[in-house]
Amino acid sequence: MKIALAQCNPIVGDIAGNTARMADCIDRAAAGGADLVVFGELSVVGYPPRDLLRKERFIADTQRAVDALARRCTRVAALVGYVRSTPEAQGRPLQNVAGLLQNGRVAHVHVKTLLPTYDVFDETRYFQPGPPPRCFELHGVRIGLSICEDLWDAEALGRALYGQDPIELLVGDGAQVIVNMAASPFQVGKGQLREDLFRRRARRTRLPVIYVNQVGGNDELVFDGASCVVGPEGQVLARAATFQEDLVVVDLDGGVQGGPAPAGDMAQLSAALKLGLRDYVRKCGFSSVVLGLSGGIDSAVVAVLAADALGPENVVGISMPSRYSSDHSQSDADDLARRLGIRCPRIAIEPMHRAFEAALGQALAEGNREIADENIQARIRGAVVMAFSNAFAHMPLATGNKSELSTGYCTLYGDMVGGLAPIGDVYKTQVFRLAQHLNVEAGHERINRSIITKPPSAELKPNQVDQDKLPPYDLLDAILERYIEGDQTGEQIASAGFDGEVVRRVVRMVDAAEYKRKQAAPVLKVTARAFGTGRRVPIAQRYVSVGGF
Amino acid sequence: MKIALAQCNPIVGDIAGNTARMADCIDRAAAGGADLVVFGELSVVGYPPRDLLRKERFIADTQRAVDALARRCTRVAALVGYVRSTPEAQGRPLQNVAGLLQNGRVAHVHVKTLLPTYDVFDETRYFQPGPPPRCFELHGVRIGLSICEDLWDAEALGRALYGQDPIELLVGDGAQVIVNMAASPFQVGKGQLREDLFRRRARRTRLPVIYVNQVGGNDELVFDGASCVVGPEGQVLARAATFQEDLVVVDLDGGVQGGPAPAGDMAQLSAALKLGLRDYVRKCGFSSVVLGLSGGIDSAVVAVLAADALGPENVVGISMPSRYSSDHSQSDADDLARRLGIRCPRIAIEPMHRAFEAALGQALAEGNREIADENIQARIRGAVVMAFSNAFAHMPLATGNKSELSTGYCTLYGDMVGGLAPIGDVYKTQVFRLAQHLNVEAGHERINRSIITKPPSAELKPNQVDQDKLPPYDLLDAILERYIEGDQTGEQIASAGFDGEVVRRVVRMVDAAEYKRKQAAPVLKVTARAFGTGRRVPIAQRYVSVGGF
Repeated sequence: MKIALAQCNPIVGDIAGNTARMADCIDRAAAGGADLVVFGELSVVGYPPRDLLRKERFIADTQRAVDALARRCTRVAALVGYVRSTPEAQGRPLQNVAGLLQNGRVAHVHVKTLLPTYDVFDETRYFQPGPPPRCFELHGVRIGLSICEDLWDAEALGRALYGQDPIELLVGDGAQVIVNMAASPFQVGKGQLREDLFRRRARRTRLPVIYVNQVGGNDELVFDGASCVVGPEGQVLARAATFQEDLVVVDLDGGVQGGPAPAGDMAQLSAALKLGLRDYVRKCGFSSVVLGLSGGIDSAVVAVLAADALGPENVVGISMPSRYSSDHSQSDADDLARRLGIRCPRIAIEPMHRAFEAALGQALAEGNREIADENIQARIRGAVVMAFSNAFAHMPLATGNKSELSTGYCTLYGDMVGGLAPIGDVYKTQVFRLAQHLNVEAGHERINRSIITKPPSAELKPNQVDQDKLPPYDLLDAILERYIEGDQTGEQIASAGFDGEVVRRVVRMVDAAEYKRKQAAPVLKVTARAFGTGRRVPIAQRYVSVGGF
Repeated sequence: MKIALAQCNPIVGDIAGNTARMADCIDRAAAGGADLVVFGELSVVGYPPRDLLRKERFIADTQRAVDALARRCTRVAALVGYVRSTPEAQGRPLQNVAGLLQNGRVAHVHVKTLLPTYDVFDETRYFQPGPPPRCFELHGVRIGLSICEDLWDAEALGRALYGQDPIELLVGDGAQVIVNMAASPFQVGKGQLREDLFRRRARRTRLPVIYVNQVGGNDELVFDGASCVVGPEGQVLARAATFQEDLVVVDLDGGVQGGPAPAGDMAQLSAALKLGLRDYVRKCGFSSVVLGLSGGIDSAVVAVLAADALGPENVVGISMPSRYSSDHSQSDADDLARRLGIRCPRIAIEPMHRAFEAALGQALAEGNREIADENIQARIRGAVVMAFSNAFAHMPLATGNKSELSTGYCTLYGDMVGGLAPIGDVYKTQVFRLAQHLNVEAGHERINRSIITKPPSAELKPNQVDQDKLPPYDLLDAILERYIEGDQTGEQIASAGFDGEVVRRVVRMVDAAEYKRKQAAPVLKVTARAFGTGRRVPIAQRYVSVGGF
């Protein structure tokens, strides 16, 4: 049997556009001799549709589009992902389903059984899990169909629902092949994690596993694709591309058919951020971006990512020197812009800074003027970036990293302005590694050495460096990762060998900055726990995450 | 049997503080002769704890606090709400439970069965539903215990889980009284909705219903309390206070015992916004606020709410006239400040405005300078408000209303700045009604007539009024309510008699402003659908919510 893995990049809610691309895949797969074309989860509507699912007409529009696609499936069968109303009132009103389109109609439906409701996922908000799953037969082969989480090792949930893991139910129903249709978001290292899972599943069931994932960026999520076929002994038989659309026809009896080898962490990160940035900008209807270019490493990395994602002609990096800016900041920014071929207008903020000082000097005399003054500079820069955005319809990019967002070492409405924060889930130590990788990737020094080697500074007062207020970044990031990704308590972190006083200070900074993150731009998720949809912490709360050890 | 309704205002995560207040209630109820003290849902940890539940120690801390409270329950029994680990691995790791504390120990546990996962609720993100519920006996009375949603009419969900509604299961188990421990957020009119539900439930089961709700503001949610007892014929026997803590001891055999009559819509709205504002500010550790005072009705209403919530001495309203400000704007702002007794410093924005114009004039010459210039003025004002906040540790308040947030008729990082948007869920037409109510409530004209009667204007260019860009507010708000609260499509709204062209324009404005709302301050929820946690719409999406009718 020949199966086509159709790895598509849908736009959420663009039912007409998505199904037009799917129809094209079906035709190409049929021409390539495929018996079955497999798409990703919710491929008709794009994942995640979120509260668009509340619109009654959205569900009706989806059904019409599926019926139209089905009429196209005469020579070849297709498995497409969509959403439908739950038959009869039983629990929640919708189901996340995969439909077999064959001979002009929907011939079989699998309803997703395990509904992820953690991290960025909210599936029980919308969906009712399906009944115990059954196989269907195609050209004499019994195919066990699953949707994303159905295949993951969710023993406890599976047992709670069905007394058994849903894949085991399919095996019990005589499955000869397991198909998994997914919308599995990227995080660094997740490709390996998934292939390990498929190998384990294949070996345990002694069946081949066919995995088709969505590709592309949707808001904060980046889907890496990396669809693949794993044989019953756990060997990878075929791989689709990563971070781009692909259509791969695999002969299930054809042995190892190859595909791109998995890339290293930094190469994955670079590709994911470029794809996420490009898709967010374009799917929002923009074609160009603007950002502040400080001469520091964060804005340099974002500028490189944007130039690669959208073309250097579509990137404007504004240099906004102040009275505290060092000479190297300006020369580094100019130099970077030249190397990348992006425009770099210069707007000195001194006149606005002086105007604010004169207007506010007396009114703020009794208050903390230093902190107000630092933030005013950042906010003037934010307003300048936004003025360019307003005047020229460039999407503004926030250049802050995860270490800053974690600790609140950033100014709300200042350096935090932007429609997207491309590196908001990348710790500072990783930003350094990424900068070096981007140079290696290009084969020359796009980000000049002095940007990479100088000590990080916000330059909001004389001789300021980040380490005046923050622990050294390698130490800080190690603590942050344990606290944010690992949900460890202060005590647990300290007992792993970190200085208790430093841990206490870091944890308090993170807790106190929740209100800033509430109003931050969407962050491209590349770790197990990013700020945004996947992390829901109250702002007005008093839990003491770090005790008096 | 005498039952104490303990209506408390917890701080989320403040386990020590919450249980200290609960211990005090237990002692007072015992002194008042109560047999049983009933608290609200998750009363030990505060509702909603959200991802604090991911912290392992949080669950352990909670259990210790419950055990300590139990040791206090010797003379009187108590029903307290908390979270515990799910016994054995079955589904999700936690349970939302109510424990009967009696004779120094936890004598009975009810596990919540129906887990709301819609609107602002995410309970299946954390919790596994309980087994079919059973009654417990106290002084010879069989008590059927339920937690919030367990009692609501969720037939479909109940049937899907247990084959039956959980309350019917308790009745079948011999319940003589139904107790409901809740954390039910306020929305205008919800008090009536709830009492109707309790009446229906009481009549159908022929049992008394005892309802205890949390009170107070937690982030965007305001809990109104309004705990009550309804007799088996559906008559309201007793009511606790609304919008404040209360401890009411009710004799179940004592007939009608009274309590405050339900208030009108505007009185509810006024009380809810003041409580939500006060609690958010204080629970975040602030005592004072700052806002821009434009002389318009929105900032006037927010100033009144803040003055009442925190005391006029804790409110600073900055007047920030520009070259386009009318004379009446300044005099109205000054006049309002005098009437309220709040400080009203004046910072003219002209010098900053000129500085930006000079700095950006050439760079923006080829672009849309008008839109950039309007936004720059709003952003200068935002930066001034934030400078006061930074210098004096006042929490900034955003003064925008729901009509503006819906249509994007507001400036991100400009008038949208703030730690909280107190009237962000109040449509403009309701803001007018609220302003009038606030005057009636006070018995004199705190908001002077000219503020209420003049045509709304952003005053960002000469002779500008809101209706240059927006339909008349009564028409706009009616369309918005159908689209946002009602999830109606453009076609449905138009077919209800609204002009198709206007509907199309409004729907497009709402869809296009999603990115602004993503970065908006938390909004106090007072309607069935507020912007924030309860509405999750993708930003990069292409669903056409309004067709070519």
